[in-house]
Parts: sequence; C-alpha cells; structure tokens
Amino acid sequence: MAPTITKSFISTDKIIEWLKFKNDNVIVMIEKIPFSKIDKWTIDKLSGSLHHESGKFFSIEGIRIYTNWGGIRSWEQPIINQPEIGILGIITKEFNGVLYFLMQAKIEPGNINYVQLSPTLQATKSNYTKVHNGKTPEYLDYFLSKNKNTIIDQLQSEQGARFLQKRNRNIIIKVDNEIEYNDNYCWMTLEQIKDLMRHNNIVNMDTRSVIACLNVNKRDHSPLNRYSKQNAELYSLSDLLSWIADQKIEFSLDVRRISLYKLKNWRITDNKIHHKEKKYFSVIATDVTIGNREVTHWTQPMVESAQDGLNAFVVKSINGVIHFIIQAKVEAGNLDIIELAPTVQCLTGNYRETGDGKLPFLNYVLNANTNQKVFDTLQSEEGGRFYREQNRNMIIIAEADFSLKLPSNYIWMTYNQIHTFIIFNNYINIQARSLLAAIKRCDEEIN
Amino acid sequence: MAPTITKSFISTDKIIEWLKFKNDNVIVMIEKIPFSKIDKWTIDKLSGSLHHESGKFFSIEGIRIYTNWGGIRSWEQPIINQPEIGILGIITKEFNGVLYFLMQAKIEPGNINYVQLSPTLQATKSNYTKVHNGKTPEYLDYFLSKNKNTIIDQLQSEQGARFLQKRNRNIIIKVDNEIEYNDNYCWMTLEQIKDLMRHNNIVNMDTRSVIACLNVNKRDHSPLNRYSKQNAELYSLSDLLSWIADQKIEFSLDVRRISLYKLKNWRITDNKIHHKEKKYFSVIATDVTIGNREVTHWTQPMVESAQDGLNAFVVKSINGVIHFIIQAKVEAGNLDIIELAPTVQCLTGNYRETGDGKLPFLNYVLNANTNQKVFDTLQSEEGGRFYREQNRNMIIIAEADFSLKLPSNYIWMTYNQIHTFIIFNNYINIQARSLLAAIKRCDEEIN
Repeated sequence: MAPTITKSFISTDKIIEWLKFKNDNVIVMIEKIPFSKIDKWTIDKLSGSLHHESGKFFSIEGIRIYTNWGGIRSWEQPIINQPEIGILGIITKEFNGVLYFLMQAKIEPGNINYVQLSPTLQATKSNYTKVHNGKTPEYLDYFLSKNKNTIIDQLQSEQGARFLQKRNRNIIIKVDNEIEYNDNYCWMTLEQIKDLMRHNNIVNMDTRSVIACLNVNKRDHSPLNRYSKQNAELYSLSDLLSWIADQKIEFSLDVRRISLYKLKNWRITDNKIHHKEKKYFSVIATDVTIGNREVTHWTQPMVESAQDGLNAFVVKSINGVIHFIIQAKVEAGNLDIIELAPTVQCLTGNYRETGDGKLPFLNYVLNANTNQKVFDTLQSEEGGRFYREQNRNMIIIAEADFSLKLPSNYIWMTYNQIHTFIIFNNYINIQARSLLAAIKRCDEEIN
Repeated sequence: MAPTITKSFISTDKIIEWLKFKNDNVIVMIEKIPFSKIDKWTIDKLSGSLHHESGKFFSIEGIRIYTNWGGIRSWEQPIINQPEIGILGIITKEFNGVLYFLMQAKIEPGNINYVQLSPTLQATKSNYTKVHNGKTPEYLDYFLSKNKNTIIDQLQSEQGARFLQKRNRNIIIKVDNEIEYNDNYCWMTLEQIKDLMRHNNIVNMDTRSVIACLNVNKRDHSPLNRYSKQNAELYSLSDLLSWIADQKIEFSLDVRRISLYKLKNWRITDNKIHHKEKKYFSVIATDVTIGNREVTHWTQPMVESAQDGLNAFVVKSINGVIHFIIQAKVEAGNLDIIELAPTVQCLTGNYRETGDGKLPFLNYVLNANTNQKVFDTLQSEEGGRFYREQNRNMIIIAEADFSLKLPSNYIWMTYNQIHTFIIFNNYINIQARSLLAAIKRCDEEIN
C-alpha cells in the first residue's frame, strides 16, 4: 500500500515528496503516432489548418509574417490558434494571519515529469461553459461568482512565437469559508511556491504566470503606479510609455493566415510538420493514456521544440534600486506588435549557433559567474500543448562596470514599474512573467 | 486689403475672428466625382480593395465581422485601413507662468467650415519619413527629438466603426526656446481651447483627441493611479480591471478581410460604395482644390455619413465625486475586442429610429432638461477622411433619482480613473476622449 502523506501546511520538502508520490503513482503513456492515426483531427484541404472535427480546443494554422524587427524580415510558420480565453485561478485563504494558496498536483501529458504544481483551476472556456457536456471543473463556481474577493484578475498573454494572440485570465481570489479538497490539492505559502521554483520543472507555466502578477514588495500585492519619476528610478512611467510608443511606431508586424500546405520551408509528412532544416519546432501527433483507476485516452497534436531555450533577465542596482533590462520584442502571435520580454529570450532558435555576439547580452548571460546568478533553473512550458519543452530561466546581476547604455529597443525598469504594466493587457510577456514569479524580494537587493 | 488680426495672447473671441478670417480667405473647392474620374486610385479586381497606386496613404477594404456583442451578430462593411501611426503633436510654452498651446488654423477639405483649430503638427508617417519627397512638415523636428520635454505621449485609437485598428501618437511637448510661427498659428491657453469647444465645429477631432489626454484635476496633468479603492470611488482600479477582463472574455470579435465586390448588402456604383438601404455611410470620390496664392489639387476617396450621430456621457455625483457611465463597446476596427465608450454612442446608425428604448440611456439623454446639460455642441470628425461629418457631443448630469444599477456592459468610473486608462493603449475610444476634452474641471462638480 502506498504511503500516505499528510500534506496540509507541510514543509517544502514534503510538498516535493507529495508531487513525487503523485508522479510515481500515476500512469501516463504518451506515444508519438502518425497523423493518419490521430482521431477526429484533420488537416482541412481547403483552409489548410489542422483542427478537431468539433471546431473546438485549438487548431494549428499557417501564417506568413512581415516585420521590420530583428534580422529576419519575413518568414512562414505554423502557429497554435486557441482564441478562447481560459481561466488560470488560484484560491487563497488566511490561516493564522498567513495567506495560503490552494495548489493542485496536475498531470499534463507533455510535461517531462507528468505531474507539476498547477493553479487551483485551469479551465478553457469550452470547459467551463460545458460545451462538451463534461463535468464542471472543480472550484469553477468560486471564480465565476459575482461576489468573489479578488486579489488579482488580469488577462495575460502566452508565448507569442507559438500562440496566435492567446490569452488567459489570471486570477487569484481569497475565501473565508472552509474549502473541501482531496489529495490532489495542498495549501502552501507564496514563499513555498517560490522555493519550489528553485527546482527544475516542478511549478508549471500557468502557476508561474499567475504568481508573477503579485507584487512581492507590497503587502496587498498592488502595483505602484506613479507618473512622475521617483528619485531612485532611472525613468518615469511617462518616459517608459513614450519609449513603448516609440517601439510600436518603429516596428511593424503584419501576419496573414495561409494554408499549412503552402508554408515555405516547412514539410508535412505523416509523422510531423517540420522545418526543412529541422529548426525551431515541429507539430507532432500524440496518443495519450492517463490514469490508474479511471483511465482516460485521447489523441491530439502537440508542439515539440527543436531544442531548449533561454530566458534571462540582467539586473543591476541603480541609485540603490534593482533595475531590469527589458526588451521590446516582436513575436508573430503578439496582439499589439511588441511585448516586453526578458533581456535575453531565445525560445526557439539555437542560441549556441547565434551566440556570436549578434544577440545582445546573450554571451554576457552565458558567461556569468556563479555569484552573479540569483536564479538558474529549468522550467517547463505548458504540458497540454508542448511536448517535453523546458527552458533555462536565469536572473543575472550585472557587474559594477556594466554600462547603463542599452540598444534602443531595450530599457531599464524597476520591479515596481514592471508591475504597473503587468496589470494592463498585453504588456509583459510570459517569459518575463515566468522569471518575475521566482523573485521573493526586489528593492535594493533581489532574491 | 484684408484686415490684419494681431493674434498672440488674444481673447477667445479674437481667436474665433482669426479662424473666420482664415476661413473667408481660403479657397476650397470640394466636388463629388465618379470613381472613374479619380486619379491614381483604383479598386483592385483581385484583392477588391480601393487604394492609391503608390500603396500609400490609406485604402478602403471590405470586412466581414462576427461578434456576440449587440443585436447584430454578423455583418459586412467597407472600412478605412491606414496602418501607419501618425503624429498629432502640440507644442506648449510657459509665458508668465501660464502654459500656452501653439495651435494651427488648418484647412481640411472634408470639414463643414474648412478651417478648424488643429494641433501644431498633424503628420502621417509617410509625411515625416518623406516617402513622397514632399517638404518636411513644420515643427516635426521638435517631436522627433530625443531630448524633448514630454508632457504626454500616448498611442490613441480612432473611430473603430470606420478605421481598422488605426492609431495616432498623441503628444504634447514643452519648449523653453523662442519659436517662430506664421499667421496660421496662434498661442492660446488650455482654457481657451476648451472654451472654443463650446462652439460648433471649431476645434478639430485631432485637437480634441490630444487635449483629452490632459488631466485637468492635476497640475502636472498626470493620471492618479491607485489600485485600492479611494473612499469616494464606487469601484477600485482592481474592480474596473476585473470588469474589463469580464467584457473581453464575454464578447468576441472576429474580423476577416473580403473583397469590396463581395460585401453583402453593399452596392458599388461609379458614384459611391453604399449600403443598399442607404444606411450607415458611403464611400465617395472627391476632387479637391485648395489655395489662394499656392494652389493644390488632388482627388481622393472620402467617407460620407448617412446622418449625424450622438456621443453622450451621463454623469452623476456619487459620494461627492462625479462618476461617468462608461460603456464597453465592440466595434469592427477595435484592436482588442472592446474599447471604453461614452454612455451613448450611435455614430453610424439612425438613432431616431432605434430610439425606442432599445439603446440604453438614449431616451434619457435626448429628453434631458436644459439644466442637466453641461455640454451640448456639434463636433466634426476628421476632415481628411470624412465628408462633412459632425456628431452631437453631450454631457448630461443625471437626476438625483437616477439608478446606480447599470446593464452589465456599463460601469461607473471617476474622471481620474478614466485618466488612468487613457495613458495605456486602446482603452478609451475617440468618442469618449472627444467628450473628455471639453471638461474644464471634474471633481465634486463638472464644467
């Protein structure tokens, strides 16, 4: 008989044990299959998009991109189109004056380690409007209630290189009443969640996205919005808005949908849709079986990255306050041309090949000393769409002689300034948020 | 010989005289012509879009819209596509401690009265990057300078029912040095500009858009961003963000480009592209001659509205502070599904026909008493694209017994809260901004 882990208000080590236990005791089989064996999914000959026969879930479509940002001005690629806005929700509750988060041990077939720490609720709109006549997701009513006590409630974007304008509602609520929960859930503190992020591939992308919305410098987690410049800030909010306007005017992004069959440099075989040089990523078909007592089985397309990526912030104490190097980055799926990205973000390219000084700050990050590294772990991307994809997440403290002068599409922002932009739609991208989620404190120092 | 008007630091009456003088002394001829007579513009048989042979300026394209907002769920219409972000810029300068705005008497052929008060600079990107090898617009360098002293600098949207995701950079800068200007320009105060808005069709749309970005309740015109609820505010910023997330999730907007030739219910004749029931608006061809000494002549398409529209805010003092009824409105050209619009906005429909209680607050606005009307004038839309289009702009104070309960896509916001959203892209639409521009003071009272 499996050991029972008592897991309310347990130590972080016990949480890891619990997740490992869950992982050891779940049966997950994921197998790559040919597209001809995938059930209810087809590439429409006319529109050239790969979709489910119900028209629901998501589709894989072809796009042609024109931009004046970066070295490559025009390319074509497949992209995931999932227009529905889902809910990523966390329930919190105070026990003895400390806020606890109700987290879920959730299986996602694409995860390297299957079970990761997930928000209380992850639901697509089809889920929660019961289009599929499935059962209502647990805890959904808490988030749909009109009388909820909301801590944060924001629309946040996902990977612009992989998703066409996808967003989820990131929401944290606080309850006062007793909540029932089963062995797949556990109460933990914000600090514990952040401690778990110091381990590889334990805290899932959706959790990181939601947690990032909390400002750790403020007791009520609110952003500090100030128009005029504070003494310690290198730029005022007004300066930053002006810089963002500059970037949106300078850079163009024109995305047109085309048939997957017409994608230049991409090949469609029965096993995958892939770039002719095996670069970037492929779309594959998978057969998934999950369960021990209750068995669930389905087939679906997934995206498999050609290699791991790197997301890194370079930070520096300026005027006694930590500033981050933020990048204005154009990605194909962005809603509004640019989003604000980490200092270095090479999710899909092979950064070892392009690491000859072409990509600003890449070599600086890769050559950083151990004592410059505040944070350096591998984190998974969403296991429902991505097949075993992990990216290196790093926060690097710049050395004393690091120049304040940056290329024109980079700027210094403080943690509080970044949080001012987080609360408004489509400013801070998921890679930046994933890194911010790890931060426990950020004022004169960062940790 | 024409009378000379000395016009530095002159009274508002003298400014009106100066504009009238300019109007009387300019020669403008605008004539409707058949499309077959329009020079260098054609409807492309293949793409079905009406565009200039250079591919510049703007084009008229066909779109098909699907939405779950409002009574009509799917329709087709022509729309203006002008993807370049232009500059609407005002230069300000302090004289004896008072801020003065350098405003221009500018001819626009579509204006009812030709000459209206315009920002110091109105320039498209083609203008200012000199794609057409024309002369550099006056004062451009001030706005492109890296060392400008910026008061506001924001990307703001234009009419979502007429433009496909069009935005302009709205910018106000402050200079210290002497500025040369000719008889087409005049220094005036913010109060004077707002006084001029109390007259019909004097202050052009671009000026109203820029002026609206200034918060009259703050000496430095900055927004007041506060996450937690102030005593007087009905909702906190957090509540408002949550409501906006609700609206963006509830409402969908799917816009596809189609050929003008395929537009359902629209007819293309040699004289106009019009709705079969003559509703909404038409696209016409015009022949324009402007000038007295130097004569300029060109032909271009313009949009002619089927009737005047109405933009109105209903406001009410709640907890001793004026609150506005804001509407979440879906329009075809919106970048992000909804924008925040006035309480009543019926720009293109015939509101007298639909005024049978279907459109919330319309009858309330139309039946308001004189003493409820803070503001009631006719204001022009942009005279470079719209043919003699004016809309009634009204601000109405609700009576004491007016219910605080609103339909779910309406919410109460204070003036300062609206200003928090103004500084971020694509929240407050041009019709709302046009009304805000008229406001001189807004706290316990509004005027």
